[in-house]
Parts: sequence; C-alpha cells; structure tokens
Amino acid sequence: MLFEEYWPYFVVGLFLYVTVRVSYVFYKGLQKRNMGLDKKNEDFGKLNRTNQVNDVDMDKDSSSEEDGIIPALPSDLKHIPFNFEKIPEEIAIAKSEEFFEMMNKRRTVRQFSKQPVPLEIIHNIIKTAGTAPSGAHTEPWTYVLVSSPQTKQTIREIIEEEEEINYTRRMGKVWTTDLKPLRTNWVKEYLTDAPYLILVFRQTYSLRDNGNKKLHYYNEQSVSIATGFLLAAIQYAGLVSLTSTPLNCGPALRTLLERPTNEKLALLLPVGYPADDCLVPDLYRKSLKEILVEF
Amino acid sequence: MLFEEYWPYFVVGLFLYVTVRVSYVFYKGLQKRNMGLDKKNEDFGKLNRTNQVNDVDMDKDSSSEEDGIIPALPSDLKHIPFNFEKIPEEIAIAKSEEFFEMMNKRRTVRQFSKQPVPLEIIHNIIKTAGTAPSGAHTEPWTYVLVSSPQTKQTIREIIEEEEEINYTRRMGKVWTTDLKPLRTNWVKEYLTDAPYLILVFRQTYSLRDNGNKKLHYYNEQSVSIATGFLLAAIQYAGLVSLTSTPLNCGPALRTLLERPTNEKLALLLPVGYPADDCLVPDLYRKSLKEILVEF
Repeated sequence: MLFEEYWPYFVVGLFLYVTVRVSYVFYKGLQKRNMGLDKKNEDFGKLNRTNQVNDVDMDKDSSSEEDGIIPALPSDLKHIPFNFEKIPEEIAIAKSEEFFEMMNKRRTVRQFSKQPVPLEIIHNIIKTAGTAPSGAHTEPWTYVLVSSPQTKQTIREIIEEEEEINYTRRMGKVWTTDLKPLRTNWVKEYLTDAPYLILVFRQTYSLRDNGNKKLHYYNEQSVSIATGFLLAAIQYAGLVSLTSTPLNCGPALRTLLERPTNEKLALLLPVGYPADDCLVPDLYRKSLKEILVEF
Repeated sequence: MLFEEYWPYFVVGLFLYVTVRVSYVFYKGLQKRNMGLDKKNEDFGKLNRTNQVNDVDMDKDSSSEEDGIIPALPSDLKHIPFNFEKIPEEIAIAKSEEFFEMMNKRRTVRQFSKQPVPLEIIHNIIKTAGTAPSGAHTEPWTYVLVSSPQTKQTIREIIEEEEEINYTRRMGKVWTTDLKPLRTNWVKEYLTDAPYLILVFRQTYSLRDNGNKKLHYYNEQSVSIATGFLLAAIQYAGLVSLTSTPLNCGPALRTLLERPTNEKLALLLPVGYPADDCLVPDLYRKSLKEILVEF
C-alpha cells in the first residue's frame, strides 16, 4: 500500500500541523494579554503575568520617550485645584431623594409619538453623555443622530430583516421565551415613529497625529457608562427612550452611516415622546435590600 | 525501531486527538452562540447563524412551555398604560441645559476627604442605579457598600499589591505611558480615605426557584449603564467619585466580600467629598461637533 511506504511523511505532516496550530493560538493569546484587551476572560480585567518585564520607574519621565512612546495626553499636563462647592447635608439628602424619584419614573418605551422634539434638547443630551469618564480619558464615542425619514426607513429595513432571523433562529428558545412577557418581536415601528434615533458607536482605537494607534482602554465599559448619562439626561428633559441592541446589524449600519472600521455599533436609542396609548410591562424593580450588601 | 513497528497506533492516536480537539472547540462555539453569549466577537452582538431552526410562533405561547422552558418574567405579565407627564418645550430646553452644566462640572477625583457622608444619600444613590434598564429586565447587579475601616484596609492591601504588578509588568509601556499625565500609580490612598467604597458586581447569571439558570443577557453593558446612573446620582447629590477598574483583583475581592462565583467585580467607586487640596488634571473635553454626526 502507498500508505505503508509514505507513512513517515504523513506522521511528520500531522505533527507539524498540530504544532503550528497550538503555537498560533498561544501567540494570539499572548498578544491580546499584552495589550490588556483579552476579552476571553469572563473574569473582568484578569491578565496573566506576561514574560515581559517593564522597568517603569514613575520618576523617570524620559524612559518611555527614549523608546519613542509618547503618551496620548500631553506629558506636561498640568494639575489644577478642583473647583468644588459643598452642598449642605440636609439639602444633599433631599436632592438625592428627588433624583431617585425622578429616575424611578423612567421606563423603557417601545411606542413613540411622531411629535417633533427641539433639536437643542437632543444636542444638550449628547453633550451630557460626552461628560462621562473614560479609560485614560480617551472619550471613545461617536454619536450618530438620525432625523432624516429616509435614513430612518433604511435603518428600519436593515434591522427588521436581521431581527427576524434573530428571533426565529439565532437567539434560541430560552432567550426568546424570556422576552415573550415583554412582547417584543422583529417589527420595530419606533425606528420610523420616533423623531430621533441616536446610534452610539464605540471607537476601539483611534489614530494620533503621527499615525500611531491610540489605544482605547475599556472602551466598551466607557461607552456604556456614557449611555447611562445619556439616559439620565433624556429622563431629566422629559423625554423617553429604549436601550436597544440590534443583534448582527452593526456592519450594515456602520456602512450606511459611513463610520470607519475602528468603530463598532454599541447601542441604538430612539428618543422622543411616548405614544398617547403607550403601554409598558407592569414590571417590578428590586428593592434596595435585594441589590445592596453592606460591610 | 519500536516506532517502525507501532506507527499505525501512533498515527491513529494523533488523528483521534486532533478530531476530538476540533470537535470540542466547535461544540463549545455552538453552545455559546445558542445562548447568545459569544463574547469572542469584537463586533458587538454578532452571532453566526446556527443550524438549529426554532419555530417560534409569537402567537403560540404554549410552545416553549411544552419544552419545559419557562420565561424568567411571568408569562401573563400585564401591560399597563404608561404614566407620562409632558414637560413644555421651553422648560425642557432649560432643564436639558441645566443638567448638562451640572454634569460638566463632574470630575474624576483621586484625593478624598475623610469627612463622613450621611448613609441615606448613599442608599438613594444606589437605589437610583437600580432603576437602570437591563437585558430582559434581569437587573444583574449587586452593590457592595463598604464603610468599615478594617475592610477598607484589607481591600487596599489587596489592590495595591496587584496594582504594583500591573504597573510594573502587566500593563506594558504604552498603557502606563498613556496614564502618566494622569499621575496614577499603585498607591491608592482613596481606598482608606473615602468614607465609602461601592464595589459593583455583575451577575453573569442567577438561579430561579426551580434551580434552573436564569440567563443575564448583556449583563456587562447593563451594569455599566447602571454605573452611569450611579455617577449621575453622585454628582447630583454633590459628592465625588472615581471610576476604577482594579485589574486582576476580582477573585480576591469577591472572596473577601463573600460574593458567589456567578458574580464578577465590574468596578470600584470610592464616594465622598474631595480633599481640600484636591487637584485634577487640566483636561479638555471634546466639543459637540467632535462627537456628533448628523443624518
């Protein structure tokens, strides 16, 4: 048999294949850990020790510049006194209650009125989101604000097509069952009813003036925190929204809205007034003692 | 040679190993996609089409219960009219400006006063975070509030030990260089100075009464959005905080604070008043036109 004659080559070939594959996976793993972007770990932020030892001496500012690494923020960034006005305790207690009562009225809304909303309010809301903290102050967000009826229609077509596949195939029975009481499906009228859609894109990195990559540490968390600011601002201004995650629609929407490939669609929020006959699920929110542990 | 005699066994063994390995990886990949929890994709939420076709007919509520799948929320969850009070446009514009001005004063603070803060304010702030939206209303958060000096001291020791390794080895030169203008290092006095530490844990899943797993869709994003609410509430009540991510400290802190293994540490926020001589980096925030694109 041919095999009996050529078996050494076959064995060597198999051995090489296994070795190359294992090495590649290991190399990719090391690369990701070095950049601090290892998402494979469920345990948030856990990095294994790398073999590379960096002698970063916090007093020697010039060491990294000798390597040609320039910080993303100015090296000579000044630190200035923090301008703080203390609020008396009794007033602070009342304010904290007031803010909770206001935010507790916030509900996710899926039936929007077509009534227009002043653009100035939306601009202030987005500016508020821009005040959020971000990893190493990278501000890794782009807010795409859509009010054009044609663009909203195209967005709706893209999303409904993907969502039908999500609901009927991808999401699986457990997920769709968990959503049933919320009465959601792949028909998304709010995408054309609401006067505005805010598509939140997160920048996975950006480019500096010299063409080098500027890393955006914790860009997912930063953008989600900023979305929390956005939702609070929406509620404060008396508007409503829906925090939606259009599964599998990212690339098509990114292309439609001409965003570059370093940006990923994080969330889509319609914003406006609720429909007159708007219904919401009669949900229960956990009490403080169900979410709080004290030491 | 022994090899020349036993090579068929060796070859078969290698072949079996490769086949088992490839099948296992493929199976795990399918499992994760079916649960909608495939985190390996940088492209947020992208799921590949599974081979499993679910004939989910939105009218037939009984189909999933025949399979024994019970939704996490009650199947007969009522939908009720949304109680909404419209704010006149002029007032809404003014409110949106006011909220932006207030939030724009928020700064991340690293030097805290030891002055105590009324517990009631902190409770209201955490209740506010609990009003955030979450995937399928799973509310996947646990807030651990630490005020005990001994526990804060232990937390500080755990974190400083890990952070020294982070700064000197794990994070790498680019990351530590990007942080230099912010003047951070592994010494974290705020962990014992601030009157309160809020450790935000995200629940990756929970257990239902019948012992089945309740999946927590988008728990990372949900908890980060809730953290945005927390930070807004902190600012509104006239307090300050720092959004910190203690790299590699999750398991040790989880054990110390007696949280179960389905919970992962997401963020740690000291809360209190700033020190009298508190300094902040003289940072620039992007303007609206740098973060907004309109269609």
